[in-house]
Amino acid sequence: MPASKKIQDSIERASWIRKMFEEGSARKAKFGAENVFDFSLGNPNLEPPAKFDQALRELAQSSVPGLHAYMANSGLPETRQAVADYLGRQNRATFTVDDVVMTVGAGGGLNVVFKTILNPGEEVIIPGPYFVEYNFYLDNHQGVPRVVSTKPDFSLDFGAIADAMTEQTRAVLINSPNNPTGNVYDEKEITQLGELLVESSEKLGRTIYLISDEPYRRIIYDGITVASIFDAYQESFVVTSFSKDLSLPGERIGYAAVNPAMSDKEMICAGMVLCNRILGYVNAPAIMQRILPELLEESVDVSLYKKKRDLLCDGLASFGYEIKKPGGAFYLFPPTPIADDVAFVAALQEENILTVPGSGFGGPGHFRIAYCVEDRVIEKALPGFERVMKKYQG
Amino acid sequence: MPASKKIQDSIERASWIRKMFEEGSARKAKFGAENVFDFSLGNPNLEPPAKFDQALRELAQSSVPGLHAYMANSGLPETRQAVADYLGRQNRATFTVDDVVMTVGAGGGLNVVFKTILNPGEEVIIPGPYFVEYNFYLDNHQGVPRVVSTKPDFSLDFGAIADAMTEQTRAVLINSPNNPTGNVYDEKEITQLGELLVESSEKLGRTIYLISDEPYRRIIYDGITVASIFDAYQESFVVTSFSKDLSLPGERIGYAAVNPAMSDKEMICAGMVLCNRILGYVNAPAIMQRILPELLEESVDVSLYKKKRDLLCDGLASFGYEIKKPGGAFYLFPPTPIADDVAFVAALQEENILTVPGSGFGGPGHFRIAYCVEDRVIEKALPGFERVMKKYQG
Repeated sequence: MPASKKIQDSIERASWIRKMFEEGSARKAKFGAENVFDFSLGNPNLEPPAKFDQALRELAQSSVPGLHAYMANSGLPETRQAVADYLGRQNRATFTVDDVVMTVGAGGGLNVVFKTILNPGEEVIIPGPYFVEYNFYLDNHQGVPRVVSTKPDFSLDFGAIADAMTEQTRAVLINSPNNPTGNVYDEKEITQLGELLVESSEKLGRTIYLISDEPYRRIIYDGITVASIFDAYQESFVVTSFSKDLSLPGERIGYAAVNPAMSDKEMICAGMVLCNRILGYVNAPAIMQRILPELLEESVDVSLYKKKRDLLCDGLASFGYEIKKPGGAFYLFPPTPIADDVAFVAALQEENILTVPGSGFGGPGHFRIAYCVEDRVIEKALPGFERVMKKYQG
Repeated sequence: MPASKKIQDSIERASWIRKMFEEGSARKAKFGAENVFDFSLGNPNLEPPAKFDQALRELAQSSVPGLHAYMANSGLPETRQAVADYLGRQNRATFTVDDVVMTVGAGGGLNVVFKTILNPGEEVIIPGPYFVEYNFYLDNHQGVPRVVSTKPDFSLDFGAIADAMTEQTRAVLINSPNNPTGNVYDEKEITQLGELLVESSEKLGRTIYLISDEPYRRIIYDGITVASIFDAYQESFVVTSFSKDLSLPGERIGYAAVNPAMSDKEMICAGMVLCNRILGYVNAPAIMQRILPELLEESVDVSLYKKKRDLLCDGLASFGYEIKKPGGAFYLFPPTPIADDVAFVAALQEENILTVPGSGFGGPGHFRIAYCVEDRVIEKALPGFERVMKKYQG
């Protein structure tokens, strides 16, 4: 067998997603890209803020030696200090450079944290629907995902989380604002989750970590705030990237930060720096680290995403889709009018509307619409959404 | 236990290297950085070529939409095409975009290849002395390193390689020009290695891959050429980065390429693209991919490294060190005049000369001098090298 058994299986399992993607490409070729409405990818359509372009131009003009040289695996001290200061403004605690490791996006950051803490076979509890890439990230380090359901409104089901705790549990992983649901946990939920983790850690006689994957933290609407994980629970990590708020997904820049009050912090941080190195990332890309300090309070114009959300939600609701406007990210995850979400997504595809079945996120009976697209894509797709709904309303 | 067992062990094992590093830092603080001669790191001291700066400036000035957006996990088609064309000029075969995956440096590329091909417990044969980071990269994917000695002149010992082949062997990993020895395998050796691998694959009834880690391919001296792995063996991968030849180690840009004639190439390449994604790299940094096509034939001024090599080699040889000028990279790996390489390196440290014991590379009785430093560092360090040699010559 040429590829490893596991990778060969993964390639085969991934084939239906590839088929969907190929079907989409075929439709674009046949009907013209402008007549296919692609809501299948979480690829931000906004450009980075003007201040980013300016910072990049300034860096490119400068002639400081060593701009692209090796650095400590944790990242540039000035960048980590700027992130630490930023975190200090966002949370009650005070952060230092030692609490921050710059990473190759949030994907890199999650792998670094998982490799640091997981012994083979240890479990991570994930409230679903969830970003299924987590399964791969855990498996990379022989970790095991334990997916628990959220309530119908996607809020945390504390009973389900408590029931999933075992002697093998190492962490709970949350993602808020959430991909695929757009749901944002409120402060009360995060506080209660912290309390549950204190209790569970005591009961099991081991530290259960809280890992918060937060790349959408700044993509929020309607005056909602995203609660501080660090304020709510001592044994916590935040992992994030600048892929969404600065629209830089291709540049692979993010960070992992630990709670300054974390137990055994020195060892955990040494482990994270080592893992950043030995996983082959070595360090986060230098050029992005150099311009980040000026950009930590910047983000794309979120009102543009809000406009898209409202346009789409109002349209879909008027056709009879069951819509609750999510508080963050750029995804809708409505129930499908028929139980078979794969069939429903196929019906939308007949209208040249590309979405993803909820089954792909551990949320069958739903479908995900990524609305980080041009407004006109939404406008032109709405009649197709209406026709498909009418078809199933009989 | 807060960190995983394995990571905790690794942190503890890494402590002597850290102690060395800390001792160096303490000496710099005490004696002044200019009076400590740091040959311990393979950190290129030359700046990137002027053409790189220009390409970066032009990119920063441009206002093409989507410059920093997501892309296929394999990388930008135009970048992969440029690399394919470059490989076509360097090897007999013709390459296509499908033969190239852009990676987060060579570290990322090696992890991608290892994860693609290795089942747990499978072995990779590595001629030593070698870059010990390979041990971590293999362990990430539950692979097992089988280190075999080279001959005293660091040329390949085919008998040792053949003896190391087992039912579990999956690949042979070479690194030429070599870190830590600077040795370059000649064309005859590479041809013979290809023949051995054909034989071994037949005998064992499974494909044994050849993986060539080539970040120093363009750092060569005295008219030496680096033989083509692709010309010599069908089942081969080349992994490389632009860290050394363009002096961009902080930017994490490289690629992995497969032999266009590789068996089951489609599955292997699909596996590599999948692994680039699921290992959390997602894709190589966009900005570097965009400027690379203009820079594939560029490199730093290698004559400057040659000057350093000659200055150092001639000096050391005149003091009685056993020196053979290596054909590539920017390392010397001479035998230590006493058997205990750790003690010898400690004696050099007393002269404020920082090097690394050969034991750290599976080559005890040697020490590594990374001469990618300012000429004056070499000049000022030579008297110290002389004094230490005199001490042991009695």
